[in-house]
Amino acid sequence: MTSSSLTAAQLAAYIDHTLLAPHAVPADIERLCQEAIQYNFAAVCIHPCHLPQAVQLLQKHPTRIGTVVGFPFGTNTTEIKAAEARQAIDQGAQEIDMVVNLSAALTNNQQYLARDISAVLAPCRAANPTVTLKIILETAVLPTDVKIMLCKLGADLAVDYLKTSTGLHPAGGATLEDVALLYQHRGSCKVKAAGGIRTADQARAMIQAGASRIGTSAGVTIVTTCN
Amino acid sequence: MTSSSLTAAQLAAYIDHTLLAPHAVPADIERLCQEAIQYNFAAVCIHPCHLPQAVQLLQKHPTRIGTVVGFPFGTNTTEIKAAEARQAIDQGAQEIDMVVNLSAALTNNQQYLARDISAVLAPCRAANPTVTLKIILETAVLPTDVKIMLCKLGADLAVDYLKTSTGLHPAGGATLEDVALLYQHRGSCKVKAAGGIRTADQARAMIQAGASRIGTSAGVTIVTTCN
Repeated sequence: MTSSSLTAAQLAAYIDHTLLAPHAVPADIERLCQEAIQYNFAAVCIHPCHLPQAVQLLQKHPTRIGTVVGFPFGTNTTEIKAAEARQAIDQGAQEIDMVVNLSAALTNNQQYLARDISAVLAPCRAANPTVTLKIILETAVLPTDVKIMLCKLGADLAVDYLKTSTGLHPAGGATLEDVALLYQHRGSCKVKAAGGIRTADQARAMIQAGASRIGTSAGVTIVTTCN
Repeated sequence: MTSSSLTAAQLAAYIDHTLLAPHAVPADIERLCQEAIQYNFAAVCIHPCHLPQAVQLLQKHPTRIGTVVGFPFGTNTTEIKAAEARQAIDQGAQEIDMVVNLSAALTNNQQYLARDISAVLAPCRAANPTVTLKIILETAVLPTDVKIMLCKLGADLAVDYLKTSTGLHPAGGATLEDVALLYQHRGSCKVKAAGGIRTADQARAMIQAGASRIGTSAGVTIVTTCN
């Protein structure tokens, strides 16, 4: 079966149902979680302040609960990123999407990057069951050699996913070329495509290019309009 | 003297010279700090990961060193915001610009807001000398009654500044109307205008409307082109 034949239910299993608008209120989170239950999305992805509500709403459902660390800029200190991850895991997060430090990436400061990622990875791995870690590269603002360096670093550290984008940078989100590049250099990691994916055709193309997860706020549209 | 007659040097004393691009590298921070020294800006405003560098560069200069907490969404937990503030102050930050929790603001959850702001205010007030706290309202996404509620809360808690905007929300930055509104309800606080201020005329108009501080990435343009 190719990705072009994925049904709505099969597509849903790829989707991180995402709501990261800063002005989302509890009623929005409730709707998001109800949609996740209705359509069996892989996960929800929400801000830390909404985590307790989502954990309660999804406690009897297999949809996984994801939150963000160092989001959306990756410019928090390593200690704060680690503290964010620890608190999120304590509160019930099963997946963490963290933004790498772009300043360190652009200056090839691999020591900083490795320490920064490892500090978040450690509590993910210490959890039982372990927590999924996705590192967000913000591919739209990085030259190719930096993207490849980050892929290799993620693969060496054995994070779970290499993720293209926050979905919030003005420079843009996921492209098929970037998904293919991350897939090529993924090592044992998987690839998550995020940013600008609004239709079933786009989602299928991202999966065809190598994505194992799709981050989108248009999950309901995608699964209810796909043919 | 009215604000319309402010000279370049007088305008500079109002300006938080700001660089919050996520991909700013150390060379960018060095240039920012050199400009702050050259033009005597009131403060620099940078991401936490660049704080040690800025502290070193500005150690013999009166320009104050500011960083951000819960930026740009305000959706971190209260505990993380407090930890961010404590670490920033430990590392030499003299000013903190924190984003309030918009979900709590929009649902009139004043108890959450008061606890969230107080948790950041406490380490600011415990520092010696005390650290300036500015709370960012993101006025462009809030109805008027919510803006007024936040002003009153900030005034009751005696934060130092009520700040209009992160400067990064697609809905927009500071408006003269919002600066005037914050000024009207400021209590003993001052007002900082930020977001979209690119010219000396705009800066002077914001000051005329009540702003005591201008957050902008166009500080050099403003002071070198003002007549």
